[in-house]
Amino acid sequence: MRTNEEWMDLALNLAEATIGQTSPNPSVGAVVVKNGELLGVGTHIRAGGPHAEVHAIAQAGDEAEGADIYVTLEPCAHYGKTPPCAELIVEKRIKRVFIACLDPNPKVAGKGVAILKSAGIEVETGIQEERALKINEHFFHFMLTNRPFITLKAAMTLDGKTATSTGDSKWITSAEARNDVHKERHRHDAILVGRNTVEYDNPNLTTRLPQGGKNPVRIILDTNLSLQSHYAVFNNEAPTWVVCGKNADKELFNKTCPHVKVLQMITKNIVLSDLMEWLAEENIQSLYVEGGGTIHQAFIKEKIFDECHWYIAPKLLGGQDARSVVGGKSPLLMKDAENIEFSTFKQIGPDLKIIATRRVEP
Amino acid sequence: MRTNEEWMDLALNLAEATIGQTSPNPSVGAVVVKNGELLGVGTHIRAGGPHAEVHAIAQAGDEAEGADIYVTLEPCAHYGKTPPCAELIVEKRIKRVFIACLDPNPKVAGKGVAILKSAGIEVETGIQEERALKINEHFFHFMLTNRPFITLKAAMTLDGKTATSTGDSKWITSAEARNDVHKERHRHDAILVGRNTVEYDNPNLTTRLPQGGKNPVRIILDTNLSLQSHYAVFNNEAPTWVVCGKNADKELFNKTCPHVKVLQMITKNIVLSDLMEWLAEENIQSLYVEGGGTIHQAFIKEKIFDECHWYIAPKLLGGQDARSVVGGKSPLLMKDAENIEFSTFKQIGPDLKIIATRRVEP
Repeated sequence: MRTNEEWMDLALNLAEATIGQTSPNPSVGAVVVKNGELLGVGTHIRAGGPHAEVHAIAQAGDEAEGADIYVTLEPCAHYGKTPPCAELIVEKRIKRVFIACLDPNPKVAGKGVAILKSAGIEVETGIQEERALKINEHFFHFMLTNRPFITLKAAMTLDGKTATSTGDSKWITSAEARNDVHKERHRHDAILVGRNTVEYDNPNLTTRLPQGGKNPVRIILDTNLSLQSHYAVFNNEAPTWVVCGKNADKELFNKTCPHVKVLQMITKNIVLSDLMEWLAEENIQSLYVEGGGTIHQAFIKEKIFDECHWYIAPKLLGGQDARSVVGGKSPLLMKDAENIEFSTFKQIGPDLKIIATRRVEP
Repeated sequence: MRTNEEWMDLALNLAEATIGQTSPNPSVGAVVVKNGELLGVGTHIRAGGPHAEVHAIAQAGDEAEGADIYVTLEPCAHYGKTPPCAELIVEKRIKRVFIACLDPNPKVAGKGVAILKSAGIEVETGIQEERALKINEHFFHFMLTNRPFITLKAAMTLDGKTATSTGDSKWITSAEARNDVHKERHRHDAILVGRNTVEYDNPNLTTRLPQGGKNPVRIILDTNLSLQSHYAVFNNEAPTWVVCGKNADKELFNKTCPHVKVLQMITKNIVLSDLMEWLAEENIQSLYVEGGGTIHQAFIKEKIFDECHWYIAPKLLGGQDARSVVGGKSPLLMKDAENIEFSTFKQIGPDLKIIATRRVEP
């Protein structure tokens, strides 16, 4: 006999398998079980389609009556594109509902549980909660703060360099580490880079995994809209949004790049906090900031980031004149450096991936 | 009943406890055992004193006859400051000898074993060999290459900075990481820094651990002998050696710092490979290079290092103008960066310590 935690792990495995494909919805899994036997499994495949519970209960058919359901997120209580799952569970006479975590939206949290309980259904919450929160980390953050979850990503030598004094940067990290970056792109709604990165490296900024993957929206910061249309980021392989200041000539730019969406700020320069508000309105729940150094410095200085993904290659380049991973101007005192906290270290091929979170001072 | 490996572990624990205090001799431990009972333990305490086997056999007394001895390094076969341990073992009628690793000196390796075997003593070698090699890593390297084992040590923010644009650097890493640096100083025969580090930071470069510790020799590179005598490295707390080029005024310097040893090179500039030869003649088996960035760059460029100890603080400073952990001039191409290999990652307090080794291309 499997324990509740084990059944929930199965549901979480299902949810995890859809990370990156359900935005703006969360990744959810559900399993229906009776007398220790699995009767139905379901996941939410993509926004607009049925919820995980609908699939799992449909597979169970008549046997759903009197069964248990394990859901990784509280069943919904509202009429959206689909009728509320909590009511479906009541209607199908499910006996017990096990929930990993409640709905993150404080205005909605507990409403699904309330519908179930008032129908006399036994409900238990908090099973494998930590894992469930991690799977939908971006979604939860967005729901709670109404700002994208922002990850700063960098690849550098052990001595903090991203290019030589002449700008040569190919390649710092290994194929394995670059493959991991493509997995991260798949997980995120949007990528952001500055105009220098486009000009120096001419990256494609698409997700290129042997097994496929979703392309995030490509966001380019270019205050004066001075980038030419021949750069790879302006091809049709994925949506591209360009952000510029109020003095840029949007009409001229759109003549050469009609398929590129332009966000023109009302300020002369690009104000990151305003940009994040706009991205939130566009339902961008997660943003992967790939640099370069000037962009990273701007995000760090304004404390607009949640996590850092740092890939460190086992190389020592040397050179005060080489390009630093975080550029711009240094603060005058070391105590004014931005504090972060290391959360995981992982070797990927020959390289090291460090994940760190921003430290919010009490 | 303990296994051979377990008895050897005890002997290795004894050896390990003397790391840093036996130079130029290795750290060695020995235990004498009969019928599963411990009869004697010994370690080599410091150069000039008795070897580990002498202490362990003395403690066993008459009971040594017919006993086994576990030694972390092949018993010596030569008359030095003490008579050869291999002969002592024969004389005391030890029955079996277990050895972790052979003498690293190819001219001597196996000679101790040969004496034992020709006296009819059973000998087994290679027990816990890897651990034994690690304990005397510096000593073994020195014996095999006649050059000190060189460790480059740096402390930086996650973005590769060691000081702000104004030179402020206090403190990058935590008290825990700094304590670990003092442990490393205790383990090394000498510390090396450049004149800039003395001028900017005025460090003491002594070993300051709550539990005490040995001070390494302080080696300062100062081509023109331009440092003034008031700096802390010129105090009497530990020996200090200054290295200069042929045009420096050694007599003038020694008038103000008579207790400081001066090595004057026959070249105008300091040639690191020549310096390493000289250090080897002075029996410096291990060198801890604490920087700064210009010094590190010189060692890296000439590939004169064996290991890197990198302390990374969970901070992002930012600034192309901030001081880089490895300074000087960058190579023109990324492919000319020096290749290293990560060997361990360890969190020390809030910081990360990375140990990497130089990659020798085949």
